[in-house]
Amino acid sequence: MYDLLPPTAAFGAAPHPCATGHIADLVEHINDLPDAEASALLATLPAERAVELFDSPELNRAGGLLLSLPAPAATALLAGMSADRAADVLRLLGRDTQATLLRPLEPEPAGALKRLLAWPEHSAGSLMTTEFVSLPSTVTVAEALAHIRAVERTRETIYALYLLDPRSQALVRTISLRRLIMGEPGDRVLDLALPRPPVTVSAETDRTDVARLFARHDLLAVPVVDARGHVLGIVTVDDVIDAIVDQGTEDTHRFGGMEAVDKPYLRIGFGEMLRKRAGWLCVLFLSEMLTASAMQHFEAELEKAIVLTLFIPLIMSSGGNSGSQATSLLIRALALGQVKLGDWWRVALRELPTGLALGAILGVLGMGRIALWQQLGIYDYGEHWVLVALTVGLGLIGIVLFGSMAGSMLPFLLKRVGFDPASASAPFVATLVDVTGLVIYFSVALAVLRGTLL
Amino acid sequence: MYDLLPPTAAFGAAPHPCATGHIADLVEHINDLPDAEASALLATLPAERAVELFDSPELNRAGGLLLSLPAPAATALLAGMSADRAADVLRLLGRDTQATLLRPLEPEPAGALKRLLAWPEHSAGSLMTTEFVSLPSTVTVAEALAHIRAVERTRETIYALYLLDPRSQALVRTISLRRLIMGEPGDRVLDLALPRPPVTVSAETDRTDVARLFARHDLLAVPVVDARGHVLGIVTVDDVIDAIVDQGTEDTHRFGGMEAVDKPYLRIGFGEMLRKRAGWLCVLFLSEMLTASAMQHFEAELEKAIVLTLFIPLIMSSGGNSGSQATSLLIRALALGQVKLGDWWRVALRELPTGLALGAILGVLGMGRIALWQQLGIYDYGEHWVLVALTVGLGLIGIVLFGSMAGSMLPFLLKRVGFDPASASAPFVATLVDVTGLVIYFSVALAVLRGTLL
Repeated sequence: MYDLLPPTAAFGAAPHPCATGHIADLVEHINDLPDAEASALLATLPAERAVELFDSPELNRAGGLLLSLPAPAATALLAGMSADRAADVLRLLGRDTQATLLRPLEPEPAGALKRLLAWPEHSAGSLMTTEFVSLPSTVTVAEALAHIRAVERTRETIYALYLLDPRSQALVRTISLRRLIMGEPGDRVLDLALPRPPVTVSAETDRTDVARLFARHDLLAVPVVDARGHVLGIVTVDDVIDAIVDQGTEDTHRFGGMEAVDKPYLRIGFGEMLRKRAGWLCVLFLSEMLTASAMQHFEAELEKAIVLTLFIPLIMSSGGNSGSQATSLLIRALALGQVKLGDWWRVALRELPTGLALGAILGVLGMGRIALWQQLGIYDYGEHWVLVALTVGLGLIGIVLFGSMAGSMLPFLLKRVGFDPASASAPFVATLVDVTGLVIYFSVALAVLRGTLL
Repeated sequence: MYDLLPPTAAFGAAPHPCATGHIADLVEHINDLPDAEASALLATLPAERAVELFDSPELNRAGGLLLSLPAPAATALLAGMSADRAADVLRLLGRDTQATLLRPLEPEPAGALKRLLAWPEHSAGSLMTTEFVSLPSTVTVAEALAHIRAVERTRETIYALYLLDPRSQALVRTISLRRLIMGEPGDRVLDLALPRPPVTVSAETDRTDVARLFARHDLLAVPVVDARGHVLGIVTVDDVIDAIVDQGTEDTHRFGGMEAVDKPYLRIGFGEMLRKRAGWLCVLFLSEMLTASAMQHFEAELEKAIVLTLFIPLIMSSGGNSGSQATSLLIRALALGQVKLGDWWRVALRELPTGLALGAILGVLGMGRIALWQQLGIYDYGEHWVLVALTVGLGLIGIVLFGSMAGSMLPFLLKRVGFDPASASAPFVATLVDVTGLVIYFSVALAVLRGTLL
């Protein structure tokens, strides 16, 4: 939509030192400037360069910068930007501001932007752009190339072309520019297209599923179609890469037990940082209070056998570690579609022997340590040290087994009830395993040590 | 290199039910078959379809399947595949097998494959393909298009074209097919190219840095150049997406405290599963044994004040959780280049107040819990319950602060000494914080409770 942008809006028309070079460098430079200086620099940029700048998802404070321009310049900029990115920037602003900026636009682009704004966050609809090349399926190669050359400047990609049924306007085939230019001018485009139904997504498809489709089919773009097969827009590979990187950040933060933050670390304010971290930390703290209750429940045993307390941190952390391993495996397997919801019992059948074996390995190590310390005289675990060692060993088997099972099953459970397994599994598992681990440990102790220490 | 592949190698030439439809579906079907049946199906595929199959990185057991073919068919398949993917498959096989398969190849493709095999894992060199389109920078649009049409079938992408200095053969400019087809037939290609030095990488560049460059510049391909500016190959966007997804899996597994596994979960054998998990689990277990030593050190205090043990799990887990938050934030900020190694002190200056504030919040919650239980008569923490509450509160501040600092600084330390911060930070932090947390807790207890309980 470059053609909608007057050559001199609020921006100077003279050549400018920031007018050449890689746009990513200019983005970084502006990101590092204080608000006022960034706005001042923006006001001096040539119109085309300002559009390039705002088209970069890496630009921080895009909403604020846009509002620092006079209203007509801001509207012209929105018109010049790619539709999907313009919608992203508008999403940063309030509804009233959106309306003010959209009002002076031509009805067609304004309508397209409003429709893009209506799709939920992280859906294919919110990632897509409406600036794609579609052709009636009846055209020849020469006609197609002429059309592409006419509309190229206003399209996000011309490498994927969408052939529509001339009557119903429904998508019939997708053809790459690559296949197209291999044809003769008189060839029918439809005959050159691969005879396969096109890969499509619906506007509600989540970005992780869109990304999986790109990886699976090596796509450069995927059309977003409605129920009647009409193309609403396309999602291009650069937006998918941004979405995968963004999702990776979100997953890592959630795995670390905090709200996802989408700003660069050094740009997060103190208040926001506290909000993103304190919530989860408090929830986990309140859940972990159950460990104090569990300990209080076994207070009589603790008083009789202080020696048992020595291994509580060791045993708890082993349960947590084995749970964390299983969770990380299953979160990823579910995210990549390697494992489906119905496979939970297959997974349980593999984690059962794995957890037992891992627990046995740690159990032997733990018993060995107690025996070694006792024999070398480093520490005296009392006359019943063999039974103490047995308690620790059996406790480890039980807790590592429980950790592996809980860690592998919780992602399924979360997914089953509609949560993203990545969003909460890891901290949940840690808390669950800590509390249960204590109960397992003391129950084993009661069974092994009754009549001697307890 | 399709032209090197005879139309009927070991493969049947008759039309085949698996010869149409999306290749990803065939890949999935073959992945689900037992070894023998997969090999049998492969032997019946038309040559072009077999090439498509092996070109899919999602195909499991590619090495084994290749070896199940008669040697000439396997070699023909390698010649037909894209060079980068052929190198990936060869990497799965032994050096001797590689040599046997490469020997019957033409010297040129064999040499290209051998050079690709020489690059280290996860480097741009190992991701790149040698099948790109280069042109002398002096050609016209018409000449360029004629060349592209002539070589299209043997190139991985034709959307990015590389203009070389006719004398030195060094890379001068990159031009997209998009810009090219907008020119008139007589235009010089060089005049149409953007007047910017091309974005390039070296063969040693790590895949995460390559991915960052793609995200930054919205690339479809990036040329890999040597010190003299000669193009060794190109990395295409589909390989970058695969690399990002792969890296995400690796990071998640490492964050969960285990060796990265690159197979689908249900395909990992029992022995491999144990190996990947037991190693880390044992290392962490042995480190966590320090918690038992710390507890033994404070045994006298424990015996005098059993009430202190009740809060050990709660306090340890809070330290672990705050450390895990800080680690996940910093791992991601370092991976995305938002924070550089030299920024460690900026990060420390932000984590210090954040850790203090978070610790204070949890401290108040913890003290509140003790006061509430005491007042409601749910549990009796003894006559000095106020001091016990103070110990827990101050301990939490110290431990959450330590967790935030250790969790944010360890990724820097690991990166400084040459490790990938994602590979080990999270489990290291947990262990470090557990052991130190106990020492902090008991030190606070000694200071607060000396003369009363201790």
